[in-house]
Amino acid sequence: MDSKRTNRRGFLKSGAALAGLAVGGVRPASAQSSMAEAMSPKNKELIAYGERSKYVTSIRVPVSGRMSPDMYGLTFHVLTPLQDQFGIITPSSLFYVATHRGSYVPEINPAEHRLMIHGMVDRPLIFTMDELKRFPFVTRIHFVECQGNRASPQNKTVQETHGLTSCAEWTGVPLSLLLKEAGIQNGASWIVAEGAEEVKGSSSLPLAKALDDCLVVYGMNGEALRPQQGFPLRLMVPGFEGIHQIKYLRRIKVVDRYYMTYDDYGHINADARAAALALQIGPKSVITFPSGGQQLPGPGFYQISGLAWSGAGRVRRVEISTDGGQHWQDAELRSPAYPMAHTSFGFQWKWDGKECVLMSRCIDELGTAQPTRADVAKYWNERTARVRGNDNTVQPWKVASDGSVHNGLA
Amino acid sequence: MDSKRTNRRGFLKSGAALAGLAVGGVRPASAQSSMAEAMSPKNKELIAYGERSKYVTSIRVPVSGRMSPDMYGLTFHVLTPLQDQFGIITPSSLFYVATHRGSYVPEINPAEHRLMIHGMVDRPLIFTMDELKRFPFVTRIHFVECQGNRASPQNKTVQETHGLTSCAEWTGVPLSLLLKEAGIQNGASWIVAEGAEEVKGSSSLPLAKALDDCLVVYGMNGEALRPQQGFPLRLMVPGFEGIHQIKYLRRIKVVDRYYMTYDDYGHINADARAAALALQIGPKSVITFPSGGQQLPGPGFYQISGLAWSGAGRVRRVEISTDGGQHWQDAELRSPAYPMAHTSFGFQWKWDGKECVLMSRCIDELGTAQPTRADVAKYWNERTARVRGNDNTVQPWKVASDGSVHNGLA
Repeated sequence: MDSKRTNRRGFLKSGAALAGLAVGGVRPASAQSSMAEAMSPKNKELIAYGERSKYVTSIRVPVSGRMSPDMYGLTFHVLTPLQDQFGIITPSSLFYVATHRGSYVPEINPAEHRLMIHGMVDRPLIFTMDELKRFPFVTRIHFVECQGNRASPQNKTVQETHGLTSCAEWTGVPLSLLLKEAGIQNGASWIVAEGAEEVKGSSSLPLAKALDDCLVVYGMNGEALRPQQGFPLRLMVPGFEGIHQIKYLRRIKVVDRYYMTYDDYGHINADARAAALALQIGPKSVITFPSGGQQLPGPGFYQISGLAWSGAGRVRRVEISTDGGQHWQDAELRSPAYPMAHTSFGFQWKWDGKECVLMSRCIDELGTAQPTRADVAKYWNERTARVRGNDNTVQPWKVASDGSVHNGLA
Repeated sequence: MDSKRTNRRGFLKSGAALAGLAVGGVRPASAQSSMAEAMSPKNKELIAYGERSKYVTSIRVPVSGRMSPDMYGLTFHVLTPLQDQFGIITPSSLFYVATHRGSYVPEINPAEHRLMIHGMVDRPLIFTMDELKRFPFVTRIHFVECQGNRASPQNKTVQETHGLTSCAEWTGVPLSLLLKEAGIQNGASWIVAEGAEEVKGSSSLPLAKALDDCLVVYGMNGEALRPQQGFPLRLMVPGFEGIHQIKYLRRIKVVDRYYMTYDDYGHINADARAAALALQIGPKSVITFPSGGQQLPGPGFYQISGLAWSGAGRVRRVEISTDGGQHWQDAELRSPAYPMAHTSFGFQWKWDGKECVLMSRCIDELGTAQPTRADVAKYWNERTARVRGNDNTVQPWKVASDGSVHNGLA
């Protein structure tokens, strides 16, 4: 309960022991100077909370051509550097952020934060963070993706085309437990979840989803949620668009209908087929190597690698084409395929030095396949594909004969 | 290939666009000042590489009573704050470090790093980092634990008793692939792996293990290995003691016998039964809440939670005793149980306010159970347990009637 304070005491005490030895200890002069160096502020930091190598400089970048934060301080987008990603866990420091709910991250004191559950319930409840931690918790790996994560032809790199998706290990309480504790009344069918930031960002969710696999999470990648990810509490809605994963979660109201909220673009549509697309992320994949802006040094063996995911469950299979979609071969899954999680794939490829187009497509556990742009146009009976909801079409990368890699939609 | 540079260009360009707007844009004065604030150095950092909340202060601490780094600069130990851990991924910044191979972390330029495979092979090979990344890779979650991770009665907190174990997602090339590429000669039975740090830390490993599940890893928790974890290349030997997970990996020699190395304490023993204990970590678990130094506010419902792991494979079951080992009940596994990985467990407990002793024990997929100290003493026909190899005995925590929690071995 009081571990932080204990830690700090332990740390200071040990520093004092070192100082004592530096005065009284008998040892070579070189050891004395290295001791002083060891206790410099820089090294204290290395002891307490390690850092990455100076040779590792991968960073998030704003969406190309857009101000982030925007002039009103509402919109803020920074993209995960997928081209530098290893495995399926996105480092918390590189997790994407996309919001229209304010670029200023609230500094919430967790001791003062509360979660209220009310509306169509038998017992309205208010929880402190400590109380939430007395409930059974689970740990799951899930992706989060913004509806607006598009493979625009104007964008050059995979960070620019697909960087609004990330994946982390989340720890928290199943929302179903909290809702059962409150007692759901007959006739309830939706919930509205609301955050504590200035604009009180909120979203409506079907009660069926809330009772299925949603989590009220306080842990991310082994430590507390990061402020940009909703510290101290976030709603995790596995497989649904990022906008539903309410940050700074402070209120859940159980209701009997869908309520529209201020930034709920895309979830109201005159065409019921289009509206139906706008909750769950479809099967999707993208090749991260080789990808736009990268350069192959010459013909030879390469690992085509990338990420696949689906809002519907596990990735069953990923297929690769090296000839612009004429032939497809199975890639290998290189990580376990967790439900609603990024899954790593790889494909051994021998490049002959000629121009070619690389593509990947994801088939999820329901058997749903990621469409090409041509598939989408055909489905909607249009000449060219028009984006409705999340764009999960196949991303082509063109490898030129000089080894340079370009967006195949350009 | 050149993504870092591309990123930085993108970032600077976007900064320039913002600056342009700050001069020419028409917008309210308040938006202008918030724009200036948005581009302050602090916020630039938030965009590029996010940080944790100022309310989250969990840190690593040196082993109690020991200098770290020591006076010769060889020994360096910092402990993971397990009491603050959520889930099974240890944040890279909080991953434990324990070494006698030098406290000064080498600053290795990955472009200049090489891995040599030689000895009893048909084709000695030297790989650059780029060449290694052309091989098929896999992503796995594995723990690493120091042989010296002991539940000493002198230590108060779980960070002090068990903080020399951590768990991460690792990405790299199966060592078996590289060894097959080199061609193993008849009669080979061991390998010696060596690091590039000043003292060239090395360990011997059975060839059977090297060909089984070892990885040559360059990725950790989604980004490049951290310097304290062996950047740019590390040998991952799942389930074996930490000392075998060679950092700064630069050389693997295929040999026909075990070679003793300078810090290979514990792996030579006149008693063959004791020597046999000293490679693979036994089934182990520890309760992280409630644990030493914590304080229960009063009687009521709590989640007993903690971590379990085994060098032999998956955790099959974790059992909890709330009466000092007289009765045991199954805990729930709260994360998937991956092979040779930390596994999260939880147990719903109603504390009646009376003094009691809490214990956990791990049963792994082979059916091997974590022993108590009494079990160990009985096995060796001794009156009190003496530590041989990694101490995987049950850790008791005593809860006093005032709610304070203490090391039950004290």
